[in-house]
Amino acid sequence: MRVLSGIQPTGRPHWGNFFGAIRQYIDLQEANDGFYFIADLHALTTVRDAEAMRQNTLNAAIDLLALGLDPAKATLFVQSHVPEVSELCWLLLSGTPMGLLQRCVAYKEKVDKGLSADAGLFTYPVLQAADILAYDSEIVPVGADQVQHIEVCRDIATKFNHQFGETFVLPKAQTLDHSAKVPGTDGEKMSKSYDNTLPLFGEVKKIRKQIMRITTDSRAMEDPKDPETDHLFLLYRLFAGGSDVQAMADKYRQGGFGYGEVKKAVAEVSEQYFADAREKRAELESNLDYVHQTLRDGADRAREVAATVLSRAQTACGLR
Amino acid sequence: MRVLSGIQPTGRPHWGNFFGAIRQYIDLQEANDGFYFIADLHALTTVRDAEAMRQNTLNAAIDLLALGLDPAKATLFVQSHVPEVSELCWLLLSGTPMGLLQRCVAYKEKVDKGLSADAGLFTYPVLQAADILAYDSEIVPVGADQVQHIEVCRDIATKFNHQFGETFVLPKAQTLDHSAKVPGTDGEKMSKSYDNTLPLFGEVKKIRKQIMRITTDSRAMEDPKDPETDHLFLLYRLFAGGSDVQAMADKYRQGGFGYGEVKKAVAEVSEQYFADAREKRAELESNLDYVHQTLRDGADRAREVAATVLSRAQTACGLR
Repeated sequence: MRVLSGIQPTGRPHWGNFFGAIRQYIDLQEANDGFYFIADLHALTTVRDAEAMRQNTLNAAIDLLALGLDPAKATLFVQSHVPEVSELCWLLLSGTPMGLLQRCVAYKEKVDKGLSADAGLFTYPVLQAADILAYDSEIVPVGADQVQHIEVCRDIATKFNHQFGETFVLPKAQTLDHSAKVPGTDGEKMSKSYDNTLPLFGEVKKIRKQIMRITTDSRAMEDPKDPETDHLFLLYRLFAGGSDVQAMADKYRQGGFGYGEVKKAVAEVSEQYFADAREKRAELESNLDYVHQTLRDGADRAREVAATVLSRAQTACGLR
Repeated sequence: MRVLSGIQPTGRPHWGNFFGAIRQYIDLQEANDGFYFIADLHALTTVRDAEAMRQNTLNAAIDLLALGLDPAKATLFVQSHVPEVSELCWLLLSGTPMGLLQRCVAYKEKVDKGLSADAGLFTYPVLQAADILAYDSEIVPVGADQVQHIEVCRDIATKFNHQFGETFVLPKAQTLDHSAKVPGTDGEKMSKSYDNTLPLFGEVKKIRKQIMRITTDSRAMEDPKDPETDHLFLLYRLFAGGSDVQAMADKYRQGGFGYGEVKKAVAEVSEQYFADAREKRAELESNLDYVHQTLRDGADRAREVAATVLSRAQTACGLR
């Protein structure tokens, strides 16, 4: 199955991004034909600093490679390196009813949050549809908030197919598993907007400090506690192996331990968990030629597919 | 000066199109670096029949060449043959305030007229801006109804330049001379929407019949008439030479002639006026390889310019 996933280069990934999305879609490379792209064109709707855009895009590529995205198994590329997507975007725009876009809640939410109401933000789902359709994508792993956009993509594709003859493959959304909710440093869901994130990469000492400052409740050391309702335990469980998790749970139930002890354990297991990725990341950073070459190769592969699809669409509507 | 003009391949040109626009912008090729494109991507917002799109696009190219557009002096190409324009379109969309597009009257007018309210129609001015900016166009000859879109283009370019540094050349609108108003077969302004047009090309016999059926008033043959208020005279004046026009005006003022006589004269001078173009058109139709090659050469030249501008824009906003 052709699986497509895009990641916006808008900042450094945190534990929530990793367990909630990145790890899950990288896993899909094993049994599928994975197409992973860094969505710089989409990021343009919010990133208005050229140097940040360049740096974020490169960082996103390095992150994914460090975290296990394997160019031998999957195709990794930068969105704007495939002109066919922009070409397809206009073909789709021309037949997308305004009402379909006006009903998209993500646009309204973003504007409510203070993003400027620009046409790029409004037509965002159409560029997303172009990305998906350009690669004959069958599966698109998405968060629950993006399911509506996949529906929009299906609507646009269905309308085009109906108008001009069978052209596009209809994709299916595969909702990412959010059951592994990742708590942030304040115990709320980890999210950039809550400013409670713990980064995947960065200075180990600094991250350890952040972990040691995680909010805890004020129950006495001696009291037994329910591990399932404690965010420190939930964080620990993300990284630790089965028997260690069991041992920690027992400790919680017995009481007589300090949160500082758990924090130290969280720091240790998380450092260990990301140790390989961290090492790989350092290697990649000192070998940027390899990263750029990987992105070029990926773009070549992606363009090959996209060119076929675009040509099909152009012929269907009479542009060729 | 780089002059840019696009023509929508939505149907066969009529006398109104020719005198009101086509002739004027073809004339600009003499003293300028003219870039003329057939706007198939824009036509997609209304033409939803692949065969019609293909035929209209080819016909538009043949018409322009037949009417004197000279590939040795100007660059003639098809809009969709330049992917850089679609790429630029997204870059511009991402920073175009919705309010700017919402204020465009052409969109509202088209929707009021019954065109479906699609995102392509709504974002039409942004694609137009991409066309203009992609070629560093300095002068854009337009009808009065399009002046607002050139203002939108300047606004978008100014905003981008302000945000990311000097990137785009600001174009100037050059309003086409509509003083030579061309009356239609009912005496109203010649326009496809009034169904009162006379085609430039087509079967001579059929056009002659259409001319002979032009509405006239019922004043007696004997009455003297004011030529300046008579649409048959105005049509005659479009084609005839100075002394012939004078002679015809005298006839009107003297009276004692029939409208049939004037209609015949209009038919004759118009046939003569378009005789060379008609012959050239027939030649081109029997030599489509030449037409296609001309369009390919034009696209190559256009892409060369557009690639430079796109690269400038991509670097400015950090995509490269």
